[in-house]
Amino acid sequence: MSGSLAIIGLGPGEARYLTPSALAALESASDLVGYGPYLDRVPAHARQTKHASDNRVEVERARHALMLAAEGKAVAVVSGGDPGVFAMAAAVFEALEAGEPDWRKLSISVEPGITALLAAAAKAGAPLGGDFCAISLSDNLKPWEVVTARLTAALSADFVISLYNPISKARPWQLGKALELAATIRAAETPVIFARAVGRPDESLRILTLAEAIAAAGTADMATLVMIGASATRLIAREGENPIVYTPRSVTKSPCVTSQGRT
Amino acid sequence: MSGSLAIIGLGPGEARYLTPSALAALESASDLVGYGPYLDRVPAHARQTKHASDNRVEVERARHALMLAAEGKAVAVVSGGDPGVFAMAAAVFEALEAGEPDWRKLSISVEPGITALLAAAAKAGAPLGGDFCAISLSDNLKPWEVVTARLTAALSADFVISLYNPISKARPWQLGKALELAATIRAAETPVIFARAVGRPDESLRILTLAEAIAAAGTADMATLVMIGASATRLIAREGENPIVYTPRSVTKSPCVTSQGRT
Repeated sequence: MSGSLAIIGLGPGEARYLTPSALAALESASDLVGYGPYLDRVPAHARQTKHASDNRVEVERARHALMLAAEGKAVAVVSGGDPGVFAMAAAVFEALEAGEPDWRKLSISVEPGITALLAAAAKAGAPLGGDFCAISLSDNLKPWEVVTARLTAALSADFVISLYNPISKARPWQLGKALELAATIRAAETPVIFARAVGRPDESLRILTLAEAIAAAGTADMATLVMIGASATRLIAREGENPIVYTPRSVTKSPCVTSQGRT
Repeated sequence: MSGSLAIIGLGPGEARYLTPSALAALESASDLVGYGPYLDRVPAHARQTKHASDNRVEVERARHALMLAAEGKAVAVVSGGDPGVFAMAAAVFEALEAGEPDWRKLSISVEPGITALLAAAAKAGAPLGGDFCAISLSDNLKPWEVVTARLTAALSADFVISLYNPISKARPWQLGKALELAATIRAAETPVIFARAVGRPDESLRILTLAEAIAAAGTADMATLVMIGASATRLIAREGENPIVYTPRSVTKSPCVTSQGRT
């Protein structure tokens, strides 16, 4: 089959974070498929057709992209951040596996991008200095008990934890609950980062304690990446600027993994 | 103070993965500091001085960079991948915190880069489709029992697991032990990815089962990123090509977090 499909990460937003490899893949496409606001970031091009869709219909969008590619088009599916991290790549492969056998003959590639946890960490300092994990707080695709089991495991084993999709109108309480759970295992003064729209003109970074973060949970939104420090995560104060948040590379104490937390 | 320090992620290797933002920061530097092979990736520039060092001396290298910046230089510290993920950023902030109080007045920034787990995932398909974690297998900076406690927690809670620094001449047995531990919790047919030097001319990708990965542990090296799938991670077979590895976004079963594994 002559069609192709590139699944492309736009990075955090501004063009200066888009890799040349992803840019080249965008420019060689005949058809762009994606959530409207991501497509809006790609400059209009006379030769290209944009197919915008709602944010909630990933698998339908993926099927549409595969059908266009099967017709011989050079299709680019665009995601914010990295397409493999809570974005479109997995949806495309779900649609591929469930779809026409011939689709497997298409040329399919994935272009990585700077995901929100890397952009947020760079803005804050080096909070990911130790082992870390990323958890989507959305319970649209998994039971809430899976989210809390994973959070508990990551807290108990002292990972730095990045929370994607922390809050939305349809999911107003999950972030508060997650932070309250964190406070049963981590100290109240543990640094927590609310990084909103990092890499875009309206970016903001708030460095809170875990106790403050619980009170501020309602001020986060879907553009916010929430990062909970490990037990060793520290601040370096600076005059007239945000403190630097970092996690030292060395670990001396041993976390004890139990569902009751570290002992 | 007039000096500045940019901590820069070069991404996986080839220039097509270097962000324009990181490139601009590199080009505006007067002094480049880093591990020799990373500095070699940066084109020589008549105006710039390169300060190469060994790979083992991160904090000394970081102190040297801060001293140069304090002298008024525009310093760039270069790392492969992302500087905040098992690389130079945390070392710089350790040196900053322990160093001269005046150093805190320097202009310090971090330029994110495509880290190995994103490059490897993009090459393989979408193995990070669910929640995931990253663990350095090096026990130079943390006790091995911390590594195994974190691995056990991540395996039990069904994260996709990326292993950085899997093996070296001085640490020959850790990867085998980690994979054997994984096999006590995950099924023997769980997909495991050995992604070596992804994004460089000599890149290679091997898709193994967990059982095969245990037997092949000795064939990995420090340039290899090892990724252990979650229980739901799957393969899509393709004729004449590597299978696609992906993790579906939906989770239906609930992981039970115990140190004995899922029940």
